Amino acid sequence: MENFILNKENEIYYECGYSNDNCILLSLDGEKYLITDGRYTLEAKKAKAEVIEERNLIKKAREIILKKRVKKLIIDPLNWSKEEYDYLSAAVKLKNDKNYSHKKRMIKKQNELEIIKKAAKLGAKAFDEFSKAIESGIDEYELSYRFKEKLTCRGKRELSFAPIVAINENAAKPHAKLTNKKLKKNDLLLLDAGIKYKRYCSDRTRTVSINKNISMGKFQKFKNQKMQKIYDIVLKAQEKAIKTVRVGERISTLDKTARKVIEDAGYGKYFVHSLGHGVGLDIHEWPFVNSRNDIIIQEGMVFTIEPGIYLPNEFGVRIEDMVMIDFNGKTKVLSENV
Amino acid sequence: MENFILNKENEIYYECGYSNDNCILLSLDGEKYLITDGRYTLEAKKAKAEVIEERNLIKKAREIILKKRVKKLIIDPLNWSKEEYDYLSAAVKLKNDKNYSHKKRMIKKQNELEIIKKAAKLGAKAFDEFSKAIESGIDEYELSYRFKEKLTCRGKRELSFAPIVAINENAAKPHAKLTNKKLKKNDLLLLDAGIKYKRYCSDRTRTVSINKNISMGKFQKFKNQKMQKIYDIVLKAQEKAIKTVRVGERISTLDKTARKVIEDAGYGKYFVHSLGHGVGLDIHEWPFVNSRNDIIIQEGMVFTIEPGIYLPNEFGVRIEDMVMIDFNGKTKVLSENV
Repeated sequence: MENFILNKENEIYYECGYSNDNCILLSLDGEKYLITDGRYTLEAKKAKAEVIEERNLIKKAREIILKKRVKKLIIDPLNWSKEEYDYLSAAVKLKNDKNYSHKKRMIKKQNELEIIKKAAKLGAKAFDEFSKAIESGIDEYELSYRFKEKLTCRGKRELSFAPIVAINENAAKPHAKLTNKKLKKNDLLLLDAGIKYKRYCSDRTRTVSINKNISMGKFQKFKNQKMQKIYDIVLKAQEKAIKTVRVGERISTLDKTARKVIEDAGYGKYFVHSLGHGVGLDIHEWPFVNSRNDIIIQEGMVFTIEPGIYLPNEFGVRIEDMVMIDFNGKTKVLSENV
Repeated sequence: MENFILNKENEIYYECGYSNDNCILLSLDGEKYLITDGRYTLEAKKAKAEVIEERNLIKKAREIILKKRVKKLIIDPLNWSKEEYDYLSAAVKLKNDKNYSHKKRMIKKQNELEIIKKAAKLGAKAFDEFSKAIESGIDEYELSYRFKEKLTCRGKRELSFAPIVAINENAAKPHAKLTNKKLKKNDLLLLDAGIKYKRYCSDRTRTVSINKNISMGKFQKFKNQKMQKIYDIVLKAQEKAIKTVRVGERISTLDKTARKVIEDAGYGKYFVHSLGHGVGLDIHEWPFVNSRNDIIIQEGMVFTIEPGIYLPNEFGVRIEDMVMIDFNGKTKVLSENV
């Protein structure tokens, strides 16, 4: 059996069903050891691992490694500082394996798929609830504040990332920051947000028209004709990419498919990011959906499809849904329309 | 002049007045280079550094290092992954200096002291505003939600960390998580929170009695006699430690002074953490105020004084203020009572 060591919260949770912001997991001959400090001893009991309380985590890890006479230990060199790595390498032969946990977690298990489905549903429901709280005259800060109120159920649930809320030209920045720009009738509003359910993330983007009945669906009617034109191109790109999702296809094909729709419409250079990313315990995980990733689509994968067109100083449109390939090989679009 | 490389947001901000979540700063012969990606090129112009746009930050850093024929480069081995470190070390002789930036930032400049003073004032003001929003019958989640509303001015300001809001026995956990426990009359409520002003943090803890007129001051009247007794011991420990703060004294003396008050009262083993920590761009920075840190107190230091007593399954008390030593050598307690 592989011996490995982990220090990232989600990677540890995946292995033993528990983690906190100060722990190390060792897996030695199939036996798991969770090292954490005294603040967490009580709650750490739910871990499927032997819990060891210690202030100096890495010192304890090295002690165990030496005591168990471990010969070789897999480590992700992206996750450990130079200092920690050298400290461990004095005790054991370290075998570098970049993205070790990401690779393991790329194919979800059935129960993970169920949780992610539920996360997506709850996330989408919050979009709908927020639609009733949108008013003309309030600024992006206040819109974001109300959105987060719905997403988190007034703080009872965690966000998977800081939501993006952007009006018109602010939506032309793929990672817009909040401003005091106020919402007006017929504006375009871009909303990108997700929540966590049982620690798994949801992720969704809608670009909506601010008219009498604000809808979070993908059918949108803009008064501004250019907005409508761009919106329809992005929607077409997303739909076409979603239709291309099937077991055996290359991930890169999805990006190329969406990009071709946008390029053919003459807006290729305004689609400035890749098509999507895997979603799970981390908001961004494997598989990354871009034109260079030739990984084959498999059952148990979950990723986003989120093409966009960003016209600087005018507006931006992005439409994002999560897609799941279940163990019957069926593609499911999660909470596309709630 | 020292050549150095940084990758942490606050460390970079300190050097050039700007940073974001994806940048590297190089300082070579006093010239500063900020490498960041295209999303940030526009806003990065405010940096007091030459801005270089590049997707692969570390590759670009290495290129510059090679082009400028850098002989030696200071790096903090705690901040760089094994992978990144090795990549850089193939191009230049790296000189390890742990906590390089923390050491530089421990003594604040006059303008930093002004900003921190303002941060503390705004933070304390939010405590007062929150006191009016506290009601019996609401749970810790809702209390925390209302507290954050005041602290952030409905999302317009950042928190320096996730606030702690804990009732009675929950306050006995130094890092309590929110629960659905509801507040009642005569309860004890522990509140630990801070905000950011111009990127600098505030940090403050109050333990208050839930009676008719809830006050965020340090004078508290508890109906429960044991609560009052413990509260008075913690307050005495804090006051005595604060009085001990003076230029030339050892940091460790402060911890020992507070601990002695609590030990003499018979509760030494319930004061389970160190006395405090430096505050600045990071919420926890140098100097760490514990019994082992023999650093001499100097003008320009800012740190917290936060003794506590935690009685498992009963309640906990912590009282925390920020203390600053100004350039006249005067000790100022920040926003002790607003």
